[in-house]
Amino acid sequence: MATERQEFIELCASLKQDMLEIMKTQHQMPQKAIDWVDQVIEYNCIGGKLNRGISVIHCADALTQGKGLTPEMKRKASILGWCIEWLQAFFLVADDIMDESITRRGQPCWYRNPKVKMIAINDAFLLETFVFQILKKNFRGDAHYLQLIELFHDVIFRTELGQLLDLTSQPLDADPDFTRFTMDRYRKIVINKTAYYTFYLSVACAMILHGVVDDASHEVAKKICVEIGQYFQIQDDYLDCYGDEAVIGKVGTDIQDNKCSWLVIQALQRATPEQTSLLKEHYGKHDPASVAKVKELYQTLDLSAIFHAYEDETYVKLCALIDGVKEMPSEVFTMVLSKIFKRNK
Amino acid sequence: MATERQEFIELCASLKQDMLEIMKTQHQMPQKAIDWVDQVIEYNCIGGKLNRGISVIHCADALTQGKGLTPEMKRKASILGWCIEWLQAFFLVADDIMDESITRRGQPCWYRNPKVKMIAINDAFLLETFVFQILKKNFRGDAHYLQLIELFHDVIFRTELGQLLDLTSQPLDADPDFTRFTMDRYRKIVINKTAYYTFYLSVACAMILHGVVDDASHEVAKKICVEIGQYFQIQDDYLDCYGDEAVIGKVGTDIQDNKCSWLVIQALQRATPEQTSLLKEHYGKHDPASVAKVKELYQTLDLSAIFHAYEDETYVKLCALIDGVKEMPSEVFTMVLSKIFKRNK
Repeated sequence: MATERQEFIELCASLKQDMLEIMKTQHQMPQKAIDWVDQVIEYNCIGGKLNRGISVIHCADALTQGKGLTPEMKRKASILGWCIEWLQAFFLVADDIMDESITRRGQPCWYRNPKVKMIAINDAFLLETFVFQILKKNFRGDAHYLQLIELFHDVIFRTELGQLLDLTSQPLDADPDFTRFTMDRYRKIVINKTAYYTFYLSVACAMILHGVVDDASHEVAKKICVEIGQYFQIQDDYLDCYGDEAVIGKVGTDIQDNKCSWLVIQALQRATPEQTSLLKEHYGKHDPASVAKVKELYQTLDLSAIFHAYEDETYVKLCALIDGVKEMPSEVFTMVLSKIFKRNK
Repeated sequence: MATERQEFIELCASLKQDMLEIMKTQHQMPQKAIDWVDQVIEYNCIGGKLNRGISVIHCADALTQGKGLTPEMKRKASILGWCIEWLQAFFLVADDIMDESITRRGQPCWYRNPKVKMIAINDAFLLETFVFQILKKNFRGDAHYLQLIELFHDVIFRTELGQLLDLTSQPLDADPDFTRFTMDRYRKIVINKTAYYTFYLSVACAMILHGVVDDASHEVAKKICVEIGQYFQIQDDYLDCYGDEAVIGKVGTDIQDNKCSWLVIQALQRATPEQTSLLKEHYGKHDPASVAKVKELYQTLDLSAIFHAYEDETYVKLCALIDGVKEMPSEVFTMVLSKIFKRNK
């Protein structure tokens, strides 16, 4: 597996060189601008878990039903994998500015570098643009080039709508943070903002690589990926509070940050009026005593057990859903699900 | 002309409705999010001069060589015109944040509305995304749909590179603002940041509508549009200082804002060491006395006459260039040039 990952990472350097070369030869950019973009890519595209990117290779492989990928198909799947990683870099650079985040992947967010600041907005745009330049360079002659472009456009649209929902629908009444903590809102945001680009995009890239472009198959893939995406985000929320910091590599702050986490939604659904008051008093406070109070309430309500029950139940449901897939080899979804089932990081 | 403009403006409302409809029916967005996007479009896509957008209709018409556009072709040209206007809205919303601008088209910049702030970044992304959704809805079945998508991608790329050049190549030495005031840098920034999307994009949309998609024709169009674009920006810089505020509708501030204007470059090329010192002392200061000193020097150096000589010379050169066009009806370029020759606003 280390080799696969290493191979995948090496491809990024080669795609980066392609982009710098276009800047140099097609657009006569000065070296200073080329160096800047080099750094934008190095700083923001590397350093993540690369799960989304590598998933395209595994999904494409699963669709061969054991025959295995040709080197050419593996290369194409890997390139599409990096398109997803660069796309995520675009989202993250921009989201960090909008959310006023401090760190990302263990280093200061890109926009927080003194020489960068708001130039990061244009850098984010460039990362998005490079996705389509990579597609153009590598897939222009392919039968399904247009489908790939439209897929990326559609997933970008979905993700931006999810971000819009997340950013704009704070209610204006006196009690701003609790009325929005509902599963309906949670689901809408998670599906759009996360599930599409995290799961459907990898699966859909692999499908298109194999020539599977009919609407019916893609509707099935969307339906399953959206459910897997919701499960993934709920795990994320669970791990933020209950995960092992040493394993995850970061300290959870959802309670302090007043996040619309699955845990607080579950708590509110089960709390007595007194417990709700306690939550209102202590949720979203940075004071460690308040955080401890909230965690204690989560303990009392046994949210950990509720999560495990949800996880088991969801797994059964998802397996049934996957079992019903007739449009394409269902192994692709089994594989995606197996990557995250009972994950601890 | 009032009717043409009115007709064009009415189409925007219909395109907006298409986008809101997609949000509602295809993506089940709540009314609040739809209302938000409605306002993003109203606030940022309307209110400009619409020259770029309406140009597509005129360019498409010029390419018929007097035969005139069919209603269907006129409609398609108008839709592409709005794609350019929405694309510009995307650039302007983002540029205003990066430049910390205060007003745009006589109203506060979008990001300066208290309820918007950094959400404007996501709004800018959405405006860009809508361009491709408009193309998809209206041109998907067309023979040259892919060429249109690639055209917009390429022009976006160019514009972002121009913005990158403009934002990042401040030299690090002690005298930061004068070493960069060279025609070489000026030309690189203007061509990429302005000329492509302001001139080439309108012409290229019209060409593609008429099925002109060969590289040779597009290279010719780029070559001419880039020169027209540079002339356009130089006019802009001239009018910022010498234009009639009542006609332009705004007060020029390039001198105060330390802008790399064509005028200051010309002044530096002609100034004695004493005059250069005077410029260094007073350029980029908001004090009215300093601005007056700079304008006085411009007067002494007779920059107004230098501009008029440049304008006449450029017109002759451009006409010769246009005369040599054999790949397509050269009327399209004559028309574009006539729109801006000796403009006073």
